[in-house]
Amino acid sequence: MDDGRLCIIGTGLIGCSFALGLKAAGYKGHITGFSRNQSTLDTAMETGAIDSGHLDLGEAVSGTRLVMLTVPMQATRQLLEDIHSVLDSTTIVTDGGSVKGSFIKEAREILSDDQLQRLVPGHPIAGRELSGAAAAQADLFQNKRVLITALPESRQTAVAEVSRLWSMTGANVEEIEPEVHDRVLAATSHLPHVVAYGLVDLLATKNEREEIFRYAAGGFRDFTRIASSDPTMWRDICATNATEIDQVLGDLIENLLRLKNMIGQGDTDALFDAFVRAKAARDEHTG
Amino acid sequence: MDDGRLCIIGTGLIGCSFALGLKAAGYKGHITGFSRNQSTLDTAMETGAIDSGHLDLGEAVSGTRLVMLTVPMQATRQLLEDIHSVLDSTTIVTDGGSVKGSFIKEAREILSDDQLQRLVPGHPIAGRELSGAAAAQADLFQNKRVLITALPESRQTAVAEVSRLWSMTGANVEEIEPEVHDRVLAATSHLPHVVAYGLVDLLATKNEREEIFRYAAGGFRDFTRIASSDPTMWRDICATNATEIDQVLGDLIENLLRLKNMIGQGDTDALFDAFVRAKAARDEHTG
Repeated sequence: MDDGRLCIIGTGLIGCSFALGLKAAGYKGHITGFSRNQSTLDTAMETGAIDSGHLDLGEAVSGTRLVMLTVPMQATRQLLEDIHSVLDSTTIVTDGGSVKGSFIKEAREILSDDQLQRLVPGHPIAGRELSGAAAAQADLFQNKRVLITALPESRQTAVAEVSRLWSMTGANVEEIEPEVHDRVLAATSHLPHVVAYGLVDLLATKNEREEIFRYAAGGFRDFTRIASSDPTMWRDICATNATEIDQVLGDLIENLLRLKNMIGQGDTDALFDAFVRAKAARDEHTG
Repeated sequence: MDDGRLCIIGTGLIGCSFALGLKAAGYKGHITGFSRNQSTLDTAMETGAIDSGHLDLGEAVSGTRLVMLTVPMQATRQLLEDIHSVLDSTTIVTDGGSVKGSFIKEAREILSDDQLQRLVPGHPIAGRELSGAAAAQADLFQNKRVLITALPESRQTAVAEVSRLWSMTGANVEEIEPEVHDRVLAATSHLPHVVAYGLVDLLATKNEREEIFRYAAGGFRDFTRIASSDPTMWRDICATNATEIDQVLGDLIENLLRLKNMIGQGDTDALFDAFVRAKAARDEHTG
């Protein structure tokens, strides 16, 4: 049985891991890949993620049942402009971007009403510090969450197909409103990244930075691990989810000012209460 | 050969791991333990960390060559008051507390000039989220740093003995000024803990806290792991190193305000530069 032709646009870590995960789960269709870069396609071919590579977008998406957009966020607008004239009339389009509101806004400006009915935005909450096809793993999404942020007009058949494919890769699929997605991810992912970058950048400017980094222990390494993430990707996330990040970062700064006052004034009871609440919340929710 | 009698005051995670580490390295002397709590002593005996347990401080320290103080920070003042009249005239005293300035200040107020010459404060930069003797491990300090913050009047023979014992447990021992220790640890350890507590406490108050914690991924778990630490211990650290923590927390808040402005104003170039600097510093220093 043929599962149908599928195309990965942007054959990097996420796109190729998606394809490898499908193949590992027995996906039988031909998987094409598109990149503007032949060497990127070559690497994706070598990993076995794609069955054919294309530098021409029309060739890549022709005859496909589903197209997965996994390109850097600053490339989505141009890509949507390029793709909307070459898409087959029945092709489902999904993506793997970290911010949904801005992508949906771009799509509404560029795609036709008919194409919007077959658009099913998504976001796999998984990744590695490494990037590129060479870092792709068939089990990258195993037991990870994939959030589907369908539009009101998205066809249920399209939503079901995108969910089915992600489920094949081992992911746990959930639907969520795009606005809720962007607000929640601002709090749990974007904010910690900004804070980790901000902390390391601060310490790197201190006179005692040699001692600071030398005497840093495991807690510091865990806390700042995400400051090793790709600056380009995170700049783009901050740019596209600016309103939500600005809001929750402001909330955090206010909360840190409260803690600072407690420390400065020796209000150890209030400090203790805050620490107890935080520990209880973390122990309860993140195990 | 007998390595001499040694006493662990406060037979919890750090003290018992120190004793177990010494024994694993072939330490031949008798190790006594002191606690105000018989069941704590019983647990320490069961782990094999101590050879005898004492509820009487004088009995515990009598005839010991070295006393290791590993008690909660709020207990050190009372302990110093209790111990200074029962210490033998040749006993070396060291400790494992996370803040050195306040401990040294207490010691200067309570101990005799002669006792201060045999005081060698220290701080093993190691630990676990668990606490108590039952969580003790002989290899807890293996390849971990121990910072010795000797006083100007500390005798070199005492410093050498404390260093030798820590080295036996597998630790890498370094000497550092107490003021530098407290400033550096405020930045690398105390500040991240306050921020992690502050972030989790903030998110736990949000209406969408269920979604927030449900959709949190590995990066968030790493970033907030230290918010599961013992609130009592961290309240005490904030109280005893308040000046340094207040200072560096203020610096961080300023830096986060700068990043917030960049995000709010769409200054993606400045944001990118900050992220690049932070990633470079982290990749270079913490590997």
